[in-house]
Amino acid sequence: MFRINDNFTKLPASYLFSEVARRVNAYSESHPGADIIRMGIGDVTRPLCQAAVEALHKAVDDEAAGETFHGYGPEQGYSFLAEKIARYDYRERGIEIDTDEIFVSDGAKSDTGNIGDILSTANRVAVTDPVYPVYVDTNVMGGRAGDLGADGRWTEIEYLPCTAENGFVPALPVNNPDVIYLCYPNNPTGTTLTRRQLKAWVDYCREHGALLLFDAAYEAFIREEDVAHSIYEIEGAREVAIEFRSFSKTAGFTGIRLGYTVVPKELMGLDEKGNKIALNGLWRRRQTTKFNGASYLTQRAAEALYTEEGQRQVKETIDYYLENARMLREGLAEAGYEAVGGINSPYIWLKTPGTMTSWEFFDYLLNRYHIVGTPGSGFGPSGEGYFRLTAFNTHENTRRCIERLGATDRK
Amino acid sequence: MFRINDNFTKLPASYLFSEVARRVNAYSESHPGADIIRMGIGDVTRPLCQAAVEALHKAVDDEAAGETFHGYGPEQGYSFLAEKIARYDYRERGIEIDTDEIFVSDGAKSDTGNIGDILSTANRVAVTDPVYPVYVDTNVMGGRAGDLGADGRWTEIEYLPCTAENGFVPALPVNNPDVIYLCYPNNPTGTTLTRRQLKAWVDYCREHGALLLFDAAYEAFIREEDVAHSIYEIEGAREVAIEFRSFSKTAGFTGIRLGYTVVPKELMGLDEKGNKIALNGLWRRRQTTKFNGASYLTQRAAEALYTEEGQRQVKETIDYYLENARMLREGLAEAGYEAVGGINSPYIWLKTPGTMTSWEFFDYLLNRYHIVGTPGSGFGPSGEGYFRLTAFNTHENTRRCIERLGATDRK
Repeated sequence: MFRINDNFTKLPASYLFSEVARRVNAYSESHPGADIIRMGIGDVTRPLCQAAVEALHKAVDDEAAGETFHGYGPEQGYSFLAEKIARYDYRERGIEIDTDEIFVSDGAKSDTGNIGDILSTANRVAVTDPVYPVYVDTNVMGGRAGDLGADGRWTEIEYLPCTAENGFVPALPVNNPDVIYLCYPNNPTGTTLTRRQLKAWVDYCREHGALLLFDAAYEAFIREEDVAHSIYEIEGAREVAIEFRSFSKTAGFTGIRLGYTVVPKELMGLDEKGNKIALNGLWRRRQTTKFNGASYLTQRAAEALYTEEGQRQVKETIDYYLENARMLREGLAEAGYEAVGGINSPYIWLKTPGTMTSWEFFDYLLNRYHIVGTPGSGFGPSGEGYFRLTAFNTHENTRRCIERLGATDRK
Repeated sequence: MFRINDNFTKLPASYLFSEVARRVNAYSESHPGADIIRMGIGDVTRPLCQAAVEALHKAVDDEAAGETFHGYGPEQGYSFLAEKIARYDYRERGIEIDTDEIFVSDGAKSDTGNIGDILSTANRVAVTDPVYPVYVDTNVMGGRAGDLGADGRWTEIEYLPCTAENGFVPALPVNNPDVIYLCYPNNPTGTTLTRRQLKAWVDYCREHGALLLFDAAYEAFIREEDVAHSIYEIEGAREVAIEFRSFSKTAGFTGIRLGYTVVPKELMGLDEKGNKIALNGLWRRRQTTKFNGASYLTQRAAEALYTEEGQRQVKETIDYYLENARMLREGLAEAGYEAVGGINSPYIWLKTPGTMTSWEFFDYLLNRYHIVGTPGSGFGPSGEGYFRLTAFNTHENTRRCIERLGATDRK
């Protein structure tokens, strides 16, 4: 009889956000009137900006007429979009990225998940801890994780703790990993690394022949000067790093799906004979074979974001969320919570009160204060005792959330 | 230094359609005035139908307002669409498929490519020959293909020839494969199997514990009574088959991306301990971890296809292409070509004249008659000496193509 990929059977049954949803649904059902404020899942709440909406309507009309109809597009995305990305996301920041180094896709979750296809299953992986679960879970599926230990750590993955003790700055790896995932601005902690701090990682990867998978999905939230918008601002990064970008949080494209991945032509990995092979060609082969391009409509919408009007509207939306983040940060501080993030990020990462575990605090907030957040332990062992709140809500709900948090028992 | 997936280095550098595009571009550049008729790549040419266009505009407006904005949707698709699929694509044909057996995605190419994620790399694969290259190439990437022999066959893949000699009906496998790909109506030959013929495959899979990956992307073209629209019309198929469906050819969604995959709950594979594991749960885990749902806009457009008006418009479009297919079939016969397909399919599969190879005939048609088709050998060794033409064009161009084919030298 045919065989399954056994690695799948190692994965714990429940995915973090499904478990959150399950508990919230159970509570709502038993308390129908409860006025629940959802600050859990990292999904945007503001509608698409006008520039994107207009571009979408126009693109739909393109699809409605024979002369302007677009069928299969290039699997790596239309050049009208790649050119805008190269110019506005990179060249204007002093970074040269060729359009054939840009691979437009249906989102960063797909790309960070699928990137393992082009890498050997023998590579050893390092992740910061806490971490976006997709990095770990996809490596479990790919056979690179080993077994799940009683401590919540996979035996073959190197965990780089980010906690209050080290100021949420991960130390460089000690086990010589081949592949390192970094996400900055960070999900879930909302913290950032300065250019100088990032330089240490690029240098490490160059020295040790490691691949840096840099997830910059939250780039649009950066407001401080010394925080890099792209890993390619760091010298030498083109030789070691793949960068993942998303329009989800930038422009609220979570529902219409778009992201892109940059694979510089200098970036090489070894084959079994010791030859250096360019990852750009491998990813192109992967995408042209297993993907058929992102929606024409969404690519047109993204193009419109790079107009002056589009940029202004994007900034307005992000500013709205950042104002929520500021309110949360200050409100939490006033209520006596220790919290980080929320400056260049929509995420606030707070220490749970006293000795409460993350899930205990989740249940406490849900049951007593009707606030939904995300338990830090869901992001990895070092997330235990922490809790994530997001800025993706209205000012009004954020204000009400803070009032309720002010009433919580901090002991 | 980190290692790449060595299987990628085994893949021949050029992908069929890239090579076709390269030769066409080279010819166009050196012959700027040439009036080239493209009957090569299987992309639709008719605009989206009105029902889909209206639904798209409305969905864009949904995304433009806070109260109706849709962010992240369920990774496996919205229930509003799954319910329509279960009802109209299945229940009305007497097939019971639960909505939680339906996984909506950005297209059948992604799904047929990614399905390997949940299967052991030790499984042996069988494909019909000629075949859609994605099935083979993704198994090369996954390490299930062995090495490419001088005969154009991968050593670990079982090829099931479909040629004029066997009436394009593949024989059952002899090497006991674990995974069998079938695509009916077939790409590239345009042929079909009757329900009775399909039953033999389902029975074979049940008897041998093989998984049947059934690609029904061209289902909407079926017009004959004894051709199954779904593999689940065949008794026992729920225990052995995954079905892939696409809106690309049905409703011209090649540019806006949508497909779905059905994984019945009875379908089980073995893990290393010999336990039977349900594939439905594995695919759900794969999709929720490595995919973030198809575009809300496109899902709304697909929903609109299931209205009475939508169904009428879809049929109208398909009928238009089938009229091209009829013209091609009859025109080719009149010109003295042997050809199959084009009855329940947009594809016509013809024998090249005399001893011409597929690529020789490609160059001959391009250079002398300015017609672009697809060389049969690009679909596998048994495609050598054949050539694919598609019905995806205007009536006018199809007519002109036939006139030119009438002038070709059949000796």
